[in-house]
Amino acid sequence: MPDRIYLDHAATTPVDPRVLQAMLPYYQSAWGNPSGIYMEAQAARRGLDEAREQVANLLECLPTEIVFTSGGTESDNLAIRGAVTANKALGRHIISSPTEHHAVLHTLERLKRDGYEVTLVPVDVEGFVDPASIQAAVRDDTTLVTIMAANNEVGTLQPVAELARAVKARNPRTFIHTDAVQAAGAVDIRPDTIGVDLMSLTAHKLYGPKGVGILYVRKRTDLEPQILGGSQERELRAGTENVAGAVAFAAALDFAVREGEQHGEHVRRLRNHLWRELRERIDGLRLNGPADFDRRLPNNLSVCFSGVEGESILLQLDMAGIAASSGSACTTGSSEPSHVLTAMGVDSDLAHAAVRLSFGTDNEASHVETVASELPLIIDRLRALSPVA
Amino acid sequence: MPDRIYLDHAATTPVDPRVLQAMLPYYQSAWGNPSGIYMEAQAARRGLDEAREQVANLLECLPTEIVFTSGGTESDNLAIRGAVTANKALGRHIISSPTEHHAVLHTLERLKRDGYEVTLVPVDVEGFVDPASIQAAVRDDTTLVTIMAANNEVGTLQPVAELARAVKARNPRTFIHTDAVQAAGAVDIRPDTIGVDLMSLTAHKLYGPKGVGILYVRKRTDLEPQILGGSQERELRAGTENVAGAVAFAAALDFAVREGEQHGEHVRRLRNHLWRELRERIDGLRLNGPADFDRRLPNNLSVCFSGVEGESILLQLDMAGIAASSGSACTTGSSEPSHVLTAMGVDSDLAHAAVRLSFGTDNEASHVETVASELPLIIDRLRALSPVA
Repeated sequence: MPDRIYLDHAATTPVDPRVLQAMLPYYQSAWGNPSGIYMEAQAARRGLDEAREQVANLLECLPTEIVFTSGGTESDNLAIRGAVTANKALGRHIISSPTEHHAVLHTLERLKRDGYEVTLVPVDVEGFVDPASIQAAVRDDTTLVTIMAANNEVGTLQPVAELARAVKARNPRTFIHTDAVQAAGAVDIRPDTIGVDLMSLTAHKLYGPKGVGILYVRKRTDLEPQILGGSQERELRAGTENVAGAVAFAAALDFAVREGEQHGEHVRRLRNHLWRELRERIDGLRLNGPADFDRRLPNNLSVCFSGVEGESILLQLDMAGIAASSGSACTTGSSEPSHVLTAMGVDSDLAHAAVRLSFGTDNEASHVETVASELPLIIDRLRALSPVA
Repeated sequence: MPDRIYLDHAATTPVDPRVLQAMLPYYQSAWGNPSGIYMEAQAARRGLDEAREQVANLLECLPTEIVFTSGGTESDNLAIRGAVTANKALGRHIISSPTEHHAVLHTLERLKRDGYEVTLVPVDVEGFVDPASIQAAVRDDTTLVTIMAANNEVGTLQPVAELARAVKARNPRTFIHTDAVQAAGAVDIRPDTIGVDLMSLTAHKLYGPKGVGILYVRKRTDLEPQILGGSQERELRAGTENVAGAVAFAAALDFAVREGEQHGEHVRRLRNHLWRELRERIDGLRLNGPADFDRRLPNNLSVCFSGVEGESILLQLDMAGIAASSGSACTTGSSEPSHVLTAMGVDSDLAHAAVRLSFGTDNEASHVETVASELPLIIDRLRALSPVA
């Protein structure tokens, strides 16, 4: 697709050719079932073991604390349902926030139906949860707090370390989970540093393939498996291991960590440049998420345009060769306003008008120029057509 | 690995280079998130939609009846837990057999803990379940019968169509699930023909990659999703779709169906030849599973050798360049006798001595010759060493 400008890296990233190269041997030669005892199986087992060690080294944790899954959504489900059901003798109270990913919120809804109590601690206008409010919500029977590390729609970087400390100070038995799917590669997510017991990651937001992720599970964190069967993944996740996927995940995380600083600088510069340009050129522009750009994902720009629908903008952008999204890829096409923006107190009208632009390695300065000249034209055109403008 | 003879195709198969070719574009160019509304997303969406249609055509069902999952184990979990929880108002009784895969049996154990009642209808000495016995076990409150189409250890082909008819005659509201992971490509698994409502398949037993499978879900079969989040897969399975995996699954199933007859003849000939040779050359040899070779998987040979441990045989075979397994890959290394052989009434001593040889496209007549000459030497050597021989 020549001349296209892809600005939806928060939805998914291209697969880094180096990652693809790393996984190919596991399709071409080391395709054995790692559970076998013969040579073909051992080659696969070695790939899986090495991938697990590589991930553990990068996260500065133990290899036994890494569970490979089919992606971030499965990891979130396993972390939340797994932890609260394994610890239900200690209590049935869970704390979260209303701006979490649907993989978290829908899992919590199911748990409510099953007799668990869920407290959603409100976020402020920039999407932040307040550690003091979270702490105040913790009870003796709170078994889990789940707060995402970075918001997928508006890029808010939660103060996870501070939150975790506040929770543990109130109840040391409460487990902390974070969905770090968007944060990985952008901020420090080493579990010991940020103080979490459970953490979800996925490869396809890190220039890896879709269909593989991990759940970090701190030693001595009780967790009930959600997919049952063979004894793979230390009986925490059954099913023949996706060896090529695990190897790809490890390679993707490796590049994300080793090149994170450089990558962060690259996307931050482009994002900041675009924001300056748009602010100058478009009236009625509103920034969603933190105004302090050090407290949001370096590649994220989320904006609303008064009087224009997000979806119309996206269609026009696409025709101009620019790929962007209205917020979360998972809800595209839905007529609901974003639950994230709504929870942040954004008017339903404006919440419909959100456009998320998320940068990646493949973007360059000329892309910013193009978007900065196309987008004002599109907004003008749409406002001229719109009955409310 | 030159000169190796791989005889564990029931554990996993090599990836067909044609399948790998089919999936590569979804790593190299059509890597978009299918939920987006822009061009990059639509290329991925098209791949996913076409894969679903291809699978539906091959199974002669509707595209909306196909749910892509991370593999056979997840499909079994989704089918069983999903169906019984969605239908718990109708009853809490489930029927299965003791020779099912652990993905089924362990899911049933969890459900028992959660207040469901499970009846395991015994199998005969060849591993068959009797439709009349299954029918007799069906009650008004039976919501699910789950019986595998072909056994992974001993190759028994269950009379699924007959079973399904018997169950529906007794209680038309009872749903039928079959784990057809091993049966696909070997026997007819079209859901309408065999009369099942739910069917699990996985790519990596069909010369496709690990980490992707499907659950067939007949229209109007109530099913509660097990992985919650975004609205992918018609809200039956959340998470960004593994597009490359789905395309690979469709390609693998396509080859399996179109080349099934030819492939079946090939492996049947090799398997029958090996059986004749071994029977002639080794005393104290016992066949596991159906003696009528038309009623077992065409590529499966499962045998026990009196006085010798299966694991010792496998290690010796591996050193001779031959990859085989003791039964199920998922329990390799476990000191437990096979639950399948035990349920079939095989003595614990013999159940420890089982060797499963499963053929595939990459095998040839010379492989049979080699195994037929090596295996008797190995058995003689081990029997000479063994205190009980």
